[in-house]
Amino acid sequence: MTIKNAFYAQSGGVTSVINASACGVIQTAQKHNNKIGKVFAGENGIIGALTENLIDTSKESDEDIAALMHTPSGAFGSCRYKMKSLEENEAEYKRLIEVFKAHNIGYFFYNGGGDSADTCLKVSQLSEKMDYPIQAIHVPKTIDNDLPVTDNCPGFGSVAKYIAVSTREASFDVASMAETSTKVFVIEVMGRHAGWIAAAGALAADADNDIPVIVLFPEIKFDKDKFIALVDKKVKSHGYCSIVVSEGVAWPDGKFLAEQGTKDNFGHAQLGGAAPVVANMVKEELGYKFHWAVADYLQRSARHLASQTDVDQAYALGEAAVNLAVEGKNSVMPSIVRTSNNPYTWEIQSGDLSSIANVEKMMPMEYISEDGFGITEACREYLLPLIEGESYPPYKNGMPQYVTLKKQLVEKKLAEFKMR
Amino acid sequence: MTIKNAFYAQSGGVTSVINASACGVIQTAQKHNNKIGKVFAGENGIIGALTENLIDTSKESDEDIAALMHTPSGAFGSCRYKMKSLEENEAEYKRLIEVFKAHNIGYFFYNGGGDSADTCLKVSQLSEKMDYPIQAIHVPKTIDNDLPVTDNCPGFGSVAKYIAVSTREASFDVASMAETSTKVFVIEVMGRHAGWIAAAGALAADADNDIPVIVLFPEIKFDKDKFIALVDKKVKSHGYCSIVVSEGVAWPDGKFLAEQGTKDNFGHAQLGGAAPVVANMVKEELGYKFHWAVADYLQRSARHLASQTDVDQAYALGEAAVNLAVEGKNSVMPSIVRTSNNPYTWEIQSGDLSSIANVEKMMPMEYISEDGFGITEACREYLLPLIEGESYPPYKNGMPQYVTLKKQLVEKKLAEFKMR
Repeated sequence: MTIKNAFYAQSGGVTSVINASACGVIQTAQKHNNKIGKVFAGENGIIGALTENLIDTSKESDEDIAALMHTPSGAFGSCRYKMKSLEENEAEYKRLIEVFKAHNIGYFFYNGGGDSADTCLKVSQLSEKMDYPIQAIHVPKTIDNDLPVTDNCPGFGSVAKYIAVSTREASFDVASMAETSTKVFVIEVMGRHAGWIAAAGALAADADNDIPVIVLFPEIKFDKDKFIALVDKKVKSHGYCSIVVSEGVAWPDGKFLAEQGTKDNFGHAQLGGAAPVVANMVKEELGYKFHWAVADYLQRSARHLASQTDVDQAYALGEAAVNLAVEGKNSVMPSIVRTSNNPYTWEIQSGDLSSIANVEKMMPMEYISEDGFGITEACREYLLPLIEGESYPPYKNGMPQYVTLKKQLVEKKLAEFKMR
Repeated sequence: MTIKNAFYAQSGGVTSVINASACGVIQTAQKHNNKIGKVFAGENGIIGALTENLIDTSKESDEDIAALMHTPSGAFGSCRYKMKSLEENEAEYKRLIEVFKAHNIGYFFYNGGGDSADTCLKVSQLSEKMDYPIQAIHVPKTIDNDLPVTDNCPGFGSVAKYIAVSTREASFDVASMAETSTKVFVIEVMGRHAGWIAAAGALAADADNDIPVIVLFPEIKFDKDKFIALVDKKVKSHGYCSIVVSEGVAWPDGKFLAEQGTKDNFGHAQLGGAAPVVANMVKEELGYKFHWAVADYLQRSARHLASQTDVDQAYALGEAAVNLAVEGKNSVMPSIVRTSNNPYTWEIQSGDLSSIANVEKMMPMEYISEDGFGITEACREYLLPLIEGESYPPYKNGMPQYVTLKKQLVEKKLAEFKMR
């Protein structure tokens, strides 16, 4: 059996558990050293492959690799760089092959969301077309939880826990202040097109915690009159009210509440600022004193409050990706299958990449309450297992100890490649 | 020895540990049942005394009182209501005395910041003037850490930990994205006039974590040119940069970066929005892609990440307040005295209220680095012990279990009082 090296890269927005997947890939590859040689990680994602900046993970200590389990962010660097189609930019794909050939790479593990599943699929198509054997396996990751096939995506559970806990804590705060001061608290959360994260805010309330939470989903066109009436009703019944607004909430004409006019490198509008818009609207219409928060990166990097389920699944998917590769699979993504809700059990199955790439999974309408401002019992049952368990990082001097890797690069063998 | 009841109230912005002080007061009062009868808590702070809405804490279970140790917010309700001077509004003070007489209250424990230390002082002056014996003891609390005399204020340590941890986590995130995407992250923190909370953001960096953090203090007039030059330098040296901006940062003419034009009930300008102002400024001047977060109430309610030092001190101060009362003290505040930095040790001493009320403690200039954008070693030594230790709340189904009290009111004995 020939031994081939593996390439691993992180793509798109990072999460508090994507490094746990990296840990799963690297540690599992070490167990299969009769098939997999070294694991090279792309410095700053796929760009590292194109520029031949390959991090030799074997130069990191076992302790540092293990510490990836509790370290948020992308330890090797990530990127927002979408490969075009083979027809549009064949040079980039050819370059990938050259780099893979030069470094005896036979396995391609790409850890990302919908866009990178698409890149992964193209690499696998290329492999066939150019007759260079690459097994391309996608490792799912996205806080947006919008990948199809898999029951949920690593990264989401921890964000959901962070938003649920933060909304509960801030609601307790507002409840104490409401008599003479703040009556409305607004928290803005991520989730451009899918309201999964916003939905998690509703978990602040439960049978023991009668907290008035209003959720504004990107799936529901914003109805100002209905919204204002509901805020007023909640403040009158509870003395206060908490509002969880997705950055992707839009007016009926499709314009985002938060639109700033700038775009990211994938051409998506860059959002931020729905919370102050909503808060000022409430003040103007009802006169209630408000406070607002924008969680932004805090929500997706909050490893200090990660969900144990999420950490476990992130690692397991990295591990499964390597096992699939070793079994000879190509163009697949390991995904999570929920086998029972209560008690929560799950297993990993493998899905075909062509059915995953570029498909966005919205919230099912049966997860959104009839009035459009909350979640249903079915949604709660879906969400709760994903935030279950606390996975605390180690602390020193009051601060969490996250690892920064050495990131030693492999010696280059090729001429420089001009990036577009 | 006559047994008198005690009155306890929470005042101003709440914290993640003010209930630990309440727990200290109530549990310690129970130990002195030969002197202190019941502890009545004001519903929504001092307003509860004026309106005779007194919560009978003896009706709460021991378990629920103990759960205050890990519950953020003000469990009895707080208020923003500043009593005027005796000359300006004697009716309110007379009413307080009437209520205290009617319910045999001889101890007044007021848990708050500078404004409530002032109220506490006035109640004590009133007691002398009207010849009704009240021992007024102030229990310090404020996330702003701006009370004089005491080494630090309960509530601050946990906010400092939250901001330090969040800034570290978000910085790891930005570092991963910087190659192709976000290069500048801005987090806005509380602290209207004192930069203590902003200073804590600088703890994100340490000997093991070379994180480029720029702090904007309210004590330093904002110098745009110097700031922009520093951001550019940090991005060029590290690839990215994190900026911690206090809500109270102001232009040289005194106008807040964040000014919204609304005021709270104490007449202070209500702030929020310095982060987007700073972020857009960086984008305009340097073109770097940014993300920004506004932590707002999340920072002061984040009991899930409380500092053990902070929780311990909050309880100890509540306990000490009752012990001072039992010793016959009046018009005092127990405060924290740091006896050693390494190892960190502290004790509680009692300070005179007249030297505390209405005095704000700014950051000493020797705590701010020479360029005005960071902290000194002395500041780091001061801050680190305050964020030491993790005090996690219990969790159920993935969520922290915070207590909501029954808040059973004592039967009223007086006619209704018309609030101004």
